[in-house]
Amino acid sequence: MSDKNFMNMCLDLAQRAWGNVSPNPYVGSVIVKDGEIISSGYHRGPGLAHAELDAINNAKVSVKGSTLYCNLEPCCHTNKRTPPCAQRIVKEGIKRVVICNLDPNPHVAGKGVQILKDAGIEVETGILKEKGLVLNEVFFKHIQEESPFVHLKWAQTLDGKIAAKDSTSKWITSDRSRALVHRERISHDAILVGASTLRVDNPSLTAREDGNVVKRIKRIVVASKDDFDHDLKFFSDDYKDDSILALPEGQTSNSDVETIFCKTTAHGKVDLNDLLAKLYEKEIYSIYVEGGQGILTQFLKQKLFDRVSVFMAPKIVGEGASPLGYIGINSMKEALCLENPKVELLGDNIYITSRGSKCSLD
Amino acid sequence: MSDKNFMNMCLDLAQRAWGNVSPNPYVGSVIVKDGEIISSGYHRGPGLAHAELDAINNAKVSVKGSTLYCNLEPCCHTNKRTPPCAQRIVKEGIKRVVICNLDPNPHVAGKGVQILKDAGIEVETGILKEKGLVLNEVFFKHIQEESPFVHLKWAQTLDGKIAAKDSTSKWITSDRSRALVHRERISHDAILVGASTLRVDNPSLTAREDGNVVKRIKRIVVASKDDFDHDLKFFSDDYKDDSILALPEGQTSNSDVETIFCKTTAHGKVDLNDLLAKLYEKEIYSIYVEGGQGILTQFLKQKLFDRVSVFMAPKIVGEGASPLGYIGINSMKEALCLENPKVELLGDNIYITSRGSKCSLD
Repeated sequence: MSDKNFMNMCLDLAQRAWGNVSPNPYVGSVIVKDGEIISSGYHRGPGLAHAELDAINNAKVSVKGSTLYCNLEPCCHTNKRTPPCAQRIVKEGIKRVVICNLDPNPHVAGKGVQILKDAGIEVETGILKEKGLVLNEVFFKHIQEESPFVHLKWAQTLDGKIAAKDSTSKWITSDRSRALVHRERISHDAILVGASTLRVDNPSLTAREDGNVVKRIKRIVVASKDDFDHDLKFFSDDYKDDSILALPEGQTSNSDVETIFCKTTAHGKVDLNDLLAKLYEKEIYSIYVEGGQGILTQFLKQKLFDRVSVFMAPKIVGEGASPLGYIGINSMKEALCLENPKVELLGDNIYITSRGSKCSLD
Repeated sequence: MSDKNFMNMCLDLAQRAWGNVSPNPYVGSVIVKDGEIISSGYHRGPGLAHAELDAINNAKVSVKGSTLYCNLEPCCHTNKRTPPCAQRIVKEGIKRVVICNLDPNPHVAGKGVQILKDAGIEVETGILKEKGLVLNEVFFKHIQEESPFVHLKWAQTLDGKIAAKDSTSKWITSDRSRALVHRERISHDAILVGASTLRVDNPSLTAREDGNVVKRIKRIVVASKDDFDHDLKFFSDDYKDDSILALPEGQTSNSDVETIFCKTTAHGKVDLNDLLAKLYEKEIYSIYVEGGQGILTQFLKQKLFDRVSVFMAPKIVGEGASPLGYIGINSMKEALCLENPKVELLGDNIYITSRGSKCSLD
């Protein structure tokens, strides 16, 4: 077993806490002694043990002289609910530490490593770095840029339609694709849709497994004014406390769901930059934008996205609604090229996801 | 090695004649004796030896007592340029014959097998039947239905656009995708496009490898009238003898390329059913329809297609041209579902192909 194998285990372990760690990162840890795994652990969520400590605490034999694998640099700061890991690793007499990513906070990055090195521990960093960055892309984004991670997602037919001529969209994709959508919802702090989607689809906007809500997440609707039927689920169901209506300043809300008023664009719409700043203040660190065309177009046109995911079903409808409108691109040469898209087959559906490259738009 | 393994070899061998066999089928043959392959062969094209004969002729040792694998039932009729294979197999003392598909002509199907059985040869049929049907889908279609095989193809961005706002479409897909397009062109008797594609793109519509034309195939343009600039490549380049202009009856052609006049629809357009019948009479047995939106829409709406292929690049353009217009589908429930789509990754491009199911349209 190589360092990479053990680091892959850490990344897998980390994901056992899927959807539970925000605003923290996903972290897993494996402890190896004489080539054998003697313990492992992962971070289960805010206020709970860090992965390294979980692994140390889980060990049934002494970890002295062992190698500890961990996909994030052990912490060294003490101004939080959990004790610092680097100091504990030193105290336990661990001989070698292998790390995937350094702490993304530039004021902290490397300090945990320094404590380990000063204690004579051999430290390696950067093992499976890219994979770790993807796993914790939400964490890295909100820590480094102090803005929510924005994930744009839509489901389309093979011929690129998100709805048929009569605006129906149920269901484009398969059960299996929709199960993955819910798994992605779980991993975000909020779902966001535009006013038309709310009006036409009356969506639940909850994170479900087998039809049951498995996690409370915020659901945000962006609108120019509140002229909605307040019998819509968003305003009236059991989860209405999770609803946030975003309106331009000067508008009024007639419903009793939480409403935030944002700066207004020249077109009388919610300014998305201001919305993201206000959501960040509310500790919403990641947003899953699920359409429709209007809101996806605004996020794309303003380059406010960190990931784009498309679920595609092998269906053809011809005339219908496109996922996007005008995003500032006029010619094929200017097309936005997604870098290193990951393609996954979900039965006969296709899932394409990419960290949004903005190169061609710049 | 199982019968399936040897049959897979036959199917692979058959494809060595890619693009050269029309109107014949792709056929490969392997001869096995005491578990060892003692010979193999394939059909190279019209007028040349059938695969079974090619394999028998290639054998360096006696084929007596051997097993012959062949993906199509050996022929038994004598009204053609090549001698009947079934009789030859009997004469050679071959002990067992394994076949993928029976002759698609219902008047002939099974007769070759009967000759073999009557001579005491053990015969097995249907091995990798589905794979054989796909390989020879063009042959099966034109023999059984006496109409050309129609293959609809388009290239699109991830968001389902075949051109950007300014109508540019060069290039949506990668070199690798476009190389596969040319390989598909080679396997058809003709390429077909609509009038707008001719006008806007001035395409070469030739089958090329590394930029060089490797096979002469017919190129068909369907138009309502001949108001083209005759300097377009279609009318003027070195391959203009391959050009066929299809116009409604009553129109006139001012160019010197071959023109066929077809029945007219209520909208003053070429009646595609009549066009296909006329092309079949001209021994055009397969057509690769490459767009644009208008012509693809007509073929789809009239259910005149046998395969649909989409090349997709991980690009986003927003507003632009969709692959299809109104095809008679109004609601998502009515969507045309493609059966068993095959998905292939071509670098970062995605190729999706399916024998067009027409179920949902019926």
